[in-house]
Amino acid sequence: MKDLWSISTSEIAGDKESIMRRGNVYQIANGYMGYRGTLDEYGPEEAVGITLAGIFDRVGSAWREPVNAPNGGFTRVSLDGVELSALGGKVRQHQQTLHFANALFERETVFASRAKTLTIKSSRFLSADIPNLGIIAFSLTCDKAAKVTIRTGVDCNVWDLNGPHLLQLAAEKRESVLLVQGVTNESSKHVVVAEAVELNFGAETNETQDNRNLRVINLRAEAGKTYRFIKYFAVFTDNDPVGRPLPEAAIATVQQARLLGYEVCLGKHNAEWDRKWERCDVKIEGDDEAQHALRYSIFQLLMVAPVKGSANSIPARALSGQVYKGAIFWDTEMFMLPFFLHTYPEKAVELMRYRIKTLNGARRKAKTEGPGYRGAFYAWESQETGDDACSYFNVGDPLNGRDLRTHFRDKQIHISGDVAIAMWNYFKLTGDDSLLLEGGAEVILECARFYYSYAFFKKEKGRYEILDVVGPDEYHERVNNNAFTSMVAKETFAIANAAVDHLRRNHPKALGALLTKIDIQGELRCFGEAEKLLYVPAPDAKTGVIEQFDGYFQLRDATVEELKAKMVHPNEYLGAGQGLAVPTKIIKQADVVAMLNLFKTHFSAEIKKANWEYYEPLTEHGSSLSACAYAMVAIEFGNLAFAYKYFLKTATIDLEAKYKVYVGAVFMGGSHPAANGGAWMTAVLGFGGVEADENRIAINPRLCAKWKSLQFNLAYKGDNFRIKITKTSVTITPSPANPREHTLLVAGRPAKCSPGNPVTIKYRRTR
Amino acid sequence: MKDLWSISTSEIAGDKESIMRRGNVYQIANGYMGYRGTLDEYGPEEAVGITLAGIFDRVGSAWREPVNAPNGGFTRVSLDGVELSALGGKVRQHQQTLHFANALFERETVFASRAKTLTIKSSRFLSADIPNLGIIAFSLTCDKAAKVTIRTGVDCNVWDLNGPHLLQLAAEKRESVLLVQGVTNESSKHVVVAEAVELNFGAETNETQDNRNLRVINLRAEAGKTYRFIKYFAVFTDNDPVGRPLPEAAIATVQQARLLGYEVCLGKHNAEWDRKWERCDVKIEGDDEAQHALRYSIFQLLMVAPVKGSANSIPARALSGQVYKGAIFWDTEMFMLPFFLHTYPEKAVELMRYRIKTLNGARRKAKTEGPGYRGAFYAWESQETGDDACSYFNVGDPLNGRDLRTHFRDKQIHISGDVAIAMWNYFKLTGDDSLLLEGGAEVILECARFYYSYAFFKKEKGRYEILDVVGPDEYHERVNNNAFTSMVAKETFAIANAAVDHLRRNHPKALGALLTKIDIQGELRCFGEAEKLLYVPAPDAKTGVIEQFDGYFQLRDATVEELKAKMVHPNEYLGAGQGLAVPTKIIKQADVVAMLNLFKTHFSAEIKKANWEYYEPLTEHGSSLSACAYAMVAIEFGNLAFAYKYFLKTATIDLEAKYKVYVGAVFMGGSHPAANGGAWMTAVLGFGGVEADENRIAINPRLCAKWKSLQFNLAYKGDNFRIKITKTSVTITPSPANPREHTLLVAGRPAKCSPGNPVTIKYRRTR
Repeated sequence: MKDLWSISTSEIAGDKESIMRRGNVYQIANGYMGYRGTLDEYGPEEAVGITLAGIFDRVGSAWREPVNAPNGGFTRVSLDGVELSALGGKVRQHQQTLHFANALFERETVFASRAKTLTIKSSRFLSADIPNLGIIAFSLTCDKAAKVTIRTGVDCNVWDLNGPHLLQLAAEKRESVLLVQGVTNESSKHVVVAEAVELNFGAETNETQDNRNLRVINLRAEAGKTYRFIKYFAVFTDNDPVGRPLPEAAIATVQQARLLGYEVCLGKHNAEWDRKWERCDVKIEGDDEAQHALRYSIFQLLMVAPVKGSANSIPARALSGQVYKGAIFWDTEMFMLPFFLHTYPEKAVELMRYRIKTLNGARRKAKTEGPGYRGAFYAWESQETGDDACSYFNVGDPLNGRDLRTHFRDKQIHISGDVAIAMWNYFKLTGDDSLLLEGGAEVILECARFYYSYAFFKKEKGRYEILDVVGPDEYHERVNNNAFTSMVAKETFAIANAAVDHLRRNHPKALGALLTKIDIQGELRCFGEAEKLLYVPAPDAKTGVIEQFDGYFQLRDATVEELKAKMVHPNEYLGAGQGLAVPTKIIKQADVVAMLNLFKTHFSAEIKKANWEYYEPLTEHGSSLSACAYAMVAIEFGNLAFAYKYFLKTATIDLEAKYKVYVGAVFMGGSHPAANGGAWMTAVLGFGGVEADENRIAINPRLCAKWKSLQFNLAYKGDNFRIKITKTSVTITPSPANPREHTLLVAGRPAKCSPGNPVTIKYRRTR
Repeated sequence: MKDLWSISTSEIAGDKESIMRRGNVYQIANGYMGYRGTLDEYGPEEAVGITLAGIFDRVGSAWREPVNAPNGGFTRVSLDGVELSALGGKVRQHQQTLHFANALFERETVFASRAKTLTIKSSRFLSADIPNLGIIAFSLTCDKAAKVTIRTGVDCNVWDLNGPHLLQLAAEKRESVLLVQGVTNESSKHVVVAEAVELNFGAETNETQDNRNLRVINLRAEAGKTYRFIKYFAVFTDNDPVGRPLPEAAIATVQQARLLGYEVCLGKHNAEWDRKWERCDVKIEGDDEAQHALRYSIFQLLMVAPVKGSANSIPARALSGQVYKGAIFWDTEMFMLPFFLHTYPEKAVELMRYRIKTLNGARRKAKTEGPGYRGAFYAWESQETGDDACSYFNVGDPLNGRDLRTHFRDKQIHISGDVAIAMWNYFKLTGDDSLLLEGGAEVILECARFYYSYAFFKKEKGRYEILDVVGPDEYHERVNNNAFTSMVAKETFAIANAAVDHLRRNHPKALGALLTKIDIQGELRCFGEAEKLLYVPAPDAKTGVIEQFDGYFQLRDATVEELKAKMVHPNEYLGAGQGLAVPTKIIKQADVVAMLNLFKTHFSAEIKKANWEYYEPLTEHGSSLSACAYAMVAIEFGNLAFAYKYFLKTATIDLEAKYKVYVGAVFMGGSHPAANGGAWMTAVLGFGGVEADENRIAINPRLCAKWKSLQFNLAYKGDNFRIKITKTSVTITPSPANPREHTLLVAGRPAKCSPGNPVTIKYRRTR
């Protein structure tokens, strides 16, 4: 029987791409940092990476990207003078396992050299309790007596796409602790790594060469005896509010951990993970494949959720490396946030605080793009300041080696509305308006202000229009009245108006201060008008199909296959003004359908069906965000078979890791947290039929055929519910700790839910 | 001494490109048709073309293009059985001459074969008196007795770029007249060619083979005796309002011409040409090179000016072939019309009637472009119906063989304003408002309506903006607030308002009928508002430079040389969204500077200088329209040396014919009537300093150093003036036929000019 709580492999194939893939699939993370799924003895060639959240650097004119810390988890062993590596051809047996339950990575490798074997076991975790801390238990056993040398410590040979980012690297040993310090190239931020060991055999010397700060332990190993030691490493940067010198903080962290010992540290770590799973696990009965994939997806999200108080967000490739510049995209708000909002609001709030923290960056961007806009134009690729890391020439043309002008940065304006909607959803589903007061309302108002300054009024038609944008379908740039974008902008005006109303009723003084601070009182009338008069393409009266943007229907009919057949280079980009898709109806990913999903209560099932059927055959699904949107909308009109197919495609994306790792010479691999979030959404909001707003939770289940039951938890306005859906009933178990009764709507019928009392409602599927 | 009234060459080099060039340089035309400067014996391989004005055809999906008539001027001679051709290697001597005075093409070629010589002389003209008629006097002389065969008649092997256009070709001989008939592929228009000869030697038989309808005259030529015959050919099409069958009309035309004889026909032709030159010649004392080039330029314009009553216009490559689809561009209104307006208003009115004739095509285009506009959006490449011949993919990419999406057709909206401005200028300078009543006012109002439907209102800024256009600088597509375009649109609103005012005062009933007909009464208020509130980029307060469009100043600095160095293919297009010029400040042609020239009275010399100096180094001059705009603006601020250089560049463009004839495999050669008009404008409006409006003619001379005097004629409100400018004085000789006195402004001082009385005013150059 399949273990639904882990993945495991004996593969160790040495080609670079396989190592890259495994590095992604087997990664661990704790929100502060990600540690790629590489082996103890690996170096930068194998893309060992400890990618730090929220600290970025730039070298020359190359892309800005997150900083990778020196590897405090490095250990290399030699047997009778022969250095052992899983890639060295001496492996007799290998097994590595990643445990979802506690994000623990284990490896066991048997090496054979000159008629002796040496077995290495290691277990690695990044503490969920102390975010700066990583711990590795390492053991080795020889079958015959042998001379063994262990080199362990901090390897500063860091894998970088566009480095080196850490300069002035300095290595030292303070008492028993190894210390490495460096400063980033661009803004001289300090990065410090300390390493301590709990090791009671052999003779230790210190070796600092080849950019490594190592302990060298020489050991005459006895046959059959296991030598085990524990490594504690800590990473600190100037982003950490430690109130004392970083080396001190790092040293204290590893020393305290060593004092507690491995088991105690692991116990605390496990306790944290138990709490996470208690809240966030989803159980699917009857479909182990879906269960495993969905759990892995949830696991990924839980690992990379930002540390409390960090106001960090989750990059599009999470903490799996430097790909996509470590930047935060709309992916976070639109595809990851719903999971956290519904299960783990304490993490959702950090994601939203990140947007508050970067509001000034968004204001700077608004001022400097186009003719100069007002308000907040969030970065398409956002790093720590909110300034845009996206280039105006973001795609290379493999046909001529030139960079193509793309308009992701300057025209993909739906990002601001995505942020505003997310901010408001946080308030709606948590009932917590403190975030609005903390800056959330300011973000919302500045986003509305941005759209107002972007929109034009068409006097003849008595309406505002949003012109010259790029929607989610990036193959068609600079379009007018993109349904997705305009709908998001209209919603932003509505949210701004609602936020002002809410504050006026509940926090009039705070509202007054805010309106004065950003001098926006005079513009509120405009937002009211724009909410009413902003044009959004409507479903065609006959067909029900919404035109993706002005003129889309006049584009040439084509098929994805036809375009692919015309490609003269496998990495040819289909957009950017002159790409093969541009004059055709072929789209990169869900656009109208994504809009129907985002605004699902605005449209009937018939409209959803009409648009799904129209657009799906035209969609290349060239983005990992596409399939889940199609899956969720398919559920809305009853095409569960198709939805299931796309759900699995989404849920397995990182597990199967079949995606392109290289595009040309550029490494593109990494995890897909948006797809992970999309998998959860498809399961819970889609098949589970959960739809919550400020007034209530509604559950309208549409379980797919295979699933006997679906169980998950929901957080709503501070209270918690366990939900179990079968083919015929929904059982709601409100937490005994909930302070009040709620009424949920199940298949349209109200269900009173008092704290601690499970209630079961029978239902019949209507579609 | 150089003959200032002709060009002549003995060259006969056989490479295709040279033959092409000479075919352009030595062409003759009479407004009805153009006859390329090829030799009697040439065929389609040498690009013999009799290109017809105003009749177009399309084959399959290839470009629509003008129809070439079967060649009624074909004659081929053999000497003792050896066929003679200038390309056959038997030429001992050759000379060909084109006379500007009467558009007469002559050739004299001495052939040598087997110790005998045969001399051919021919003179060819297309009647300026009877537009359907062409006449050729052909003679041959052998130095020794010989057997000579003459094949003469109609060659249906027509040179076509995208043909064949004439189907169902039928050849016959009716009495002594050869007749060829065909119908066009697309709309079955009939084209008929008749040929008659006046020939009194030899024995004639008829031969119809190889797509030719020929007379074969066998002759035993005596030594030293000259055999001369005259060919009369006539072309008729369904466009000719003849009121009887076309073959009859064609036969009657050649028979009547034969009755009159060569000398009489030539005499009538010459008389027409004398009148043309009497009105339109410009004399430059002291600079033969400029004189010759300018006269050639004027000659070109006079040849291709449309036939009276045809309502035809002049294509961008005139009647020199099928290049540029035989289409009419903005070139006509902006670069050719001024010449006709100031010297030959009877031709100007045809150009304007063409736009009235094609108003419905412009309406159709407005409805179908973008979201559907109202009013008149004139075709970027206009043929007989006014529907747009321009493709959305109008440029090939030599790097990958694909067609590039360009926005000439859908975004180069200044064309409508160019038409409206021209229409209004016709009224201002002729004082004739009949054209307004004929449809001119309707054109103007529909153009204003189009701009109103195109513009958006920016409420925050209290202004209309014209967004998403292509200006004259086609390298930067889809720009906002292009100074040229917005200025033209604003002027269009002003003209619409002025036209309504004029009609209200002078033709209230006609106005009422027009407003009702096009249901526009309710929109007039909008035009008033738009005239006031339409935003046009203004000169920068510090530098005086006008930003070409929003964001231009932020583009990358570059030089033309730098871009050329980056080209990987010589025919690489620099625009179309991803071309090398797009991210840079490099522009194809005058844009802001063209605007300063068009609206020269709106801007000070300082502003002109500032913009000229800013933009000129950034200009590739990739269009023949560019140099003259820079020349004229240079004159405005006193840089006469530079202006002279660009004047000569413009005036010699067709004479030197150094331009590219092939781009890739596409033939691009042909004449440049817009540059011809630009040369005239630079001489008369530029150096001559003529500036006329509805109130008066002003003359503010700025003769360049070389020129002792400049003489030209002006037509103004039905009256005529001869002007002679020297370095110190201006002499105005009003025609004795003028019915009234005029006051002209010379260097700012009023000069009363009564009919028939020359007046000389001294002046001092102020700059």
